[in-house]
Amino acid sequence: MAATGLAAMARPAFAQGDLLPSWNDGPTKRAILDFIARTTQAGGRDWVPVPERIACFDNDGTLWTEQPVYFQIAFAFDRVKALAPRHPEWRTQEPFRSILADDRATLATLGEKGFLEVMAATHTGLTTEAFGKAVLDWLATARHPRFNRPYTDLVYQPMLELLALLRAHQFKTYIVSGGGIEFMRPWTERVYGIPPEQVVGSSGVTRYELRPDGTPVLVKDPKVMFIDDGPGKAVGINQFIGRRPVFAFGNSDGDQQMLEWTAAGSGARFMGLVHHTDGVREYAYDRPSLVGQLDKAWNEALRRGWTIVDMKNDWKVIYPFELK
Amino acid sequence: MAATGLAAMARPAFAQGDLLPSWNDGPTKRAILDFIARTTQAGGRDWVPVPERIACFDNDGTLWTEQPVYFQIAFAFDRVKALAPRHPEWRTQEPFRSILADDRATLATLGEKGFLEVMAATHTGLTTEAFGKAVLDWLATARHPRFNRPYTDLVYQPMLELLALLRAHQFKTYIVSGGGIEFMRPWTERVYGIPPEQVVGSSGVTRYELRPDGTPVLVKDPKVMFIDDGPGKAVGINQFIGRRPVFAFGNSDGDQQMLEWTAAGSGARFMGLVHHTDGVREYAYDRPSLVGQLDKAWNEALRRGWTIVDMKNDWKVIYPFELK
Ligand SMILES: [Ca+2]
Ligand SMILES: [Ca+2]
Repeated sequence: MAATGLAAMARPAFAQGDLLPSWNDGPTKRAILDFIARTTQAGGRDWVPVPERIACFDNDGTLWTEQPVYFQIAFAFDRVKALAPRHPEWRTQEPFRSILADDRATLATLGEKGFLEVMAATHTGLTTEAFGKAVLDWLATARHPRFNRPYTDLVYQPMLELLALLRAHQFKTYIVSGGGIEFMRPWTERVYGIPPEQVVGSSGVTRYELRPDGTPVLVKDPKVMFIDDGPGKAVGINQFIGRRPVFAFGNSDGDQQMLEWTAAGSGARFMGLVHHTDGVREYAYDRPSLVGQLDKAWNEALRRGWTIVDMKNDWKVIYPFELK
Repeated sequence: MAATGLAAMARPAFAQGDLLPSWNDGPTKRAILDFIARTTQAGGRDWVPVPERIACFDNDGTLWTEQPVYFQIAFAFDRVKALAPRHPEWRTQEPFRSILADDRATLATLGEKGFLEVMAATHTGLTTEAFGKAVLDWLATARHPRFNRPYTDLVYQPMLELLALLRAHQFKTYIVSGGGIEFMRPWTERVYGIPPEQVVGSSGVTRYELRPDGTPVLVKDPKVMFIDDGPGKAVGINQFIGRRPVFAFGNSDGDQQMLEWTAAGSGARFMGLVHHTDGVREYAYDRPSLVGQLDKAWNEALRRGWTIVDMKNDWKVIYPFELK
């Protein structure tokens, strides 16, 4: 009955029929539709007032693919290659040597510290505007090594449908990602319908400067401002949004605290995890994995009855281009 | 003609007549109405797409009174007094001694460092929830020393009308304040119609903790995360909103960079300053002033033709309670 109510309400935006057409029928899809129906049905016991309808999504591995490496790492490595002629010292200096030599064995051991070093070296001194342009230029030309397509083609069609369905029910959709805020904002509105002010992410310090002609710019410093991962996701949600979400979706241990923080509010709650189970159409990985490890958060989800998406069985298609 | 178009469009929200009834006619009011008309008239040369309609307002001295001291300082001092029985050492230790003794001469020299010390001592260890409750409890009982009213009564009626008019024209209204983000968010939605996720401000570090029963909390640490003042306002706008505003209003030198940052975008722009000229109905101050000094930003506004509100002459009433 709740689902019938939802279908009726959603009709203007989702003309008759399936509200999540790329999701197979089953408990996962039912849990999502049921939550949206219950929380948006006026007068219902689980009704959530519109201003409280905050839905937070992790990005890497939840809204788009994150293999064989986080796409932002691919971007940073490509910047190292582009800037290498100006930095002859990089030919012998790690981690730049390994990047330039495509030495994957060494790169796999890079870790967060090494990656931050690469970001600092390749992003420092750019204005925020120049950085945004560099991101868009890269996305326009770079291709994913396996699918040979622009990285922004590798977003998940079922999640695009879910984002749109939530917005049609007056949920405000946010990204809450460990990725760089300035790496995401230039394209999230076009690709996900999520405007820059609804993107929470990791960020570096920027410095306000007046150029000689009086034009103000913000220049990227090497210093890290905030890491939006793990416990940082709850901190970031509080810092940027200032409200507790009622709906949150992630895919890895870095999302555990975001889901805990969401679950700890009162009233109806939805906590979801994407489990990468499809090695044929995408990638299959959970524990252990260097990228997007799902281990502790999986245990907690099983224990607490959170929704777990089985990509292989729950999703009819993975990417939008499969529909064409 | 533009103003006619605006009146017609605004009719649903502002039934016939004056769109800013508490503003006297004159160049200031005309500049505001003209800007809104030009930027929202479909097909016009200065039309701004809805997603780009970002309007940023400073809070202290721009949306509410900031004399005789910033209201957040009054809050922190009241907390020192409330917590004093648990801290006998404060009777001799500065700056607490001066606060407990109401030693205004010493307090006037406190400066940002001293104030941060008071905040750290009185806020550290509270959860974000407990802190928000402390703010609301204080607002419910504290009274302004001159007006003998709750501090939230001392918001500017003309600015409430401006906020509502902007929103009626699909501008997203933000607060961008040097004040504490957690001090503002509990009440800005009720008082200004600005939801917590549209409040940018200074903030401290918070720490994610699981309580013994498994409940997650965010605990306030003494460390400063970000000071949203001066150049920090441009940084904060970029960090939290990720779009450049087209409209910004401040009242002091701490707003200069926010206005410069707003002015440096392309297309139509509005930069405004509230000049406190009414010592009878409110307070009169500019340069020099310990609170809300308006000096360099005033010079720049005069030089660049930014709009300057003369409170005494531009505003029919200052506070909402004058209407009753
Ligand atoms: Ca992820
Ligand atoms: Ca101010």
